[in-house]
Amino acid sequence: VSAPGEFEIIARYFTRRNDRADVLLGVGDDAAVLECPGQRKLVVAMDTIVEGVHFPKDTDAADIGYRALAVNLSDLAAMGAEPAWMTLSLSLPGSDSTWLQGFASGLFELADRHGVALVGGDTVRGPLVVTVQIAGLVEPDAWLTRAGAKPGDLVFVSGVPGEAAAGLELIQRNAVQGDAARHLRQRFLRPEPRVGLGRELRSVASAAMDVSDGLLVDLRKLCAASGCGMQLNVDALPQSAPMLQLMPAAECIEHALAGGDDYEIIFTVPASRAQRVRDLRSAPCTQIGAIVAGDAVLCSRGGAPFEPRRRGYDHFEQGPGSP
Amino acid sequence: VSAPGEFEIIARYFTRRNDRADVLLGVGDDAAVLECPGQRKLVVAMDTIVEGVHFPKDTDAADIGYRALAVNLSDLAAMGAEPAWMTLSLSLPGSDSTWLQGFASGLFELADRHGVALVGGDTVRGPLVVTVQIAGLVEPDAWLTRAGAKPGDLVFVSGVPGEAAAGLELIQRNAVQGDAARHLRQRFLRPEPRVGLGRELRSVASAAMDVSDGLLVDLRKLCAASGCGMQLNVDALPQSAPMLQLMPAAECIEHALAGGDDYEIIFTVPASRAQRVRDLRSAPCTQIGAIVAGDAVLCSRGGAPFEPRRRGYDHFEQGPGSP
Repeated sequence: VSAPGEFEIIARYFTRRNDRADVLLGVGDDAAVLECPGQRKLVVAMDTIVEGVHFPKDTDAADIGYRALAVNLSDLAAMGAEPAWMTLSLSLPGSDSTWLQGFASGLFELADRHGVALVGGDTVRGPLVVTVQIAGLVEPDAWLTRAGAKPGDLVFVSGVPGEAAAGLELIQRNAVQGDAARHLRQRFLRPEPRVGLGRELRSVASAAMDVSDGLLVDLRKLCAASGCGMQLNVDALPQSAPMLQLMPAAECIEHALAGGDDYEIIFTVPASRAQRVRDLRSAPCTQIGAIVAGDAVLCSRGGAPFEPRRRGYDHFEQGPGSP
Repeated sequence: VSAPGEFEIIARYFTRRNDRADVLLGVGDDAAVLECPGQRKLVVAMDTIVEGVHFPKDTDAADIGYRALAVNLSDLAAMGAEPAWMTLSLSLPGSDSTWLQGFASGLFELADRHGVALVGGDTVRGPLVVTVQIAGLVEPDAWLTRAGAKPGDLVFVSGVPGEAAAGLELIQRNAVQGDAARHLRQRFLRPEPRVGLGRELRSVASAAMDVSDGLLVDLRKLCAASGCGMQLNVDALPQSAPMLQLMPAAECIEHALAGGDDYEIIFTVPASRAQRVRDLRSAPCTQIGAIVAGDAVLCSRGGAPFEPRRRGYDHFEQGPGSP
């Protein structure tokens, strides 16, 4: 069996029956043609994952396909948007049928769960780099941004931040035996984009953002965009039983504060609407702090100021926090 | 001066004043929010360029920035769409300020010429790979596809195919002295996306497509999509004086038929509308053949069948035509 060519790759692995009536022209021409409903606004995000940077070199192709879409869906979730269409750029060293089959299966597994149609893209020979552009729709004036937090607002996070970073560490140490380790590994390999939660938050949150680079560094970005500061209670962070089983408590806190790849949502809620967070049905959410005046994100633990050892992730930073 | 971090790169090089009223939220949040006009349809395309594959290793950063957008605008041109917004994924080995400055200048030079706003994207550390997603708008039922050609239609190409491939060859041979060579080099480095021509063709052409992988291979794709064949008159191909000055005629024909990177538009026109091609104002267009029944693209030269030596470009093909 010869390796498939570019056109065959697109035809065999990335052309599917179109289930969305708003896709007027899909994969296969110079561009796709889409129908935007008159009232709703278009929301677009683009994220790239690189082998050896965003996932380890021997990651399963299906997990890479899943991840490429998940990190993008997470951005739409943070806006309160409903996902609709994606385009895919796949830079690949070669055209291995088994790999392509696996990649497509992981990508479409998640796409189907959220009703997202692949409408176009590009397949080129190069290092393993995957870019997805996601487009979604949101009601007029209903989208969430990072910029709406105000002093007095309460700060929440969904899920259990830190587990993904712990999972990556275990994968890199090749220590993924046992239920706890497998749970953490899955949290890194298969992050669950909080699309449903984002939709629920449109009428609840004053600001929202997804956590990709680390809780602290992303909270700082939310505060910078909102022009405020934050008091973060480290004791209130959601506890991870699997993480505590495998690592010292101090390391768990470090993963929760500085580990990336969580793809959870951080959001702020005016105190007057705090009750409504309990009614959110899509994901468990925990209050971890409050918005204050100023511009600093300050942590406390046991009632005393707490200085975290690491801050978070910047691809191009030379100082502490770099990979 | 320390190298800029990820957030600084975005703030310093890729955040600009927003001139488009339809950009409700631009660069800097989890996603952008855009206003789609009710009637018009959304047209999206995504193209990726990789160092060492789509451009030589020592290409000027400004030319890379220009190219990343040009190849995408060319896809919109082929649809007859009007460009509006782009997102950019930049995978970079490091954060060199001079390089970033140059890249942004080339990108925005072309973006400004076409009124395209950068609304989001991603900057990651990795091999030099650039992906742009372009989005544009087109009137209802007015977009062009590859699929509308019918036997009897005339086949046209804009500009002078082959010059870009000749330019690349000269760059690779480091033979870019003299006016002719410099002209060809510019044709490779700064392809002019035929956006205006595409808009004009909406009421003229029965099918259209941009030439990126080579004239013959792309004509075959147009024919396959339209379910027809083509008779191509090699003698009718636009002549390039600079190319003929520097290379044997046989090689010029080979570049014109099989060389990629032209980003010209091939289009078909029913004989009844052939007169209207003369009135097109955006680009010179040349009739090079006619659509016929069947599925073959046959070439003739001097009235006799002509078999080209090379076919064109497929990133993953193992046979002739591979790089």
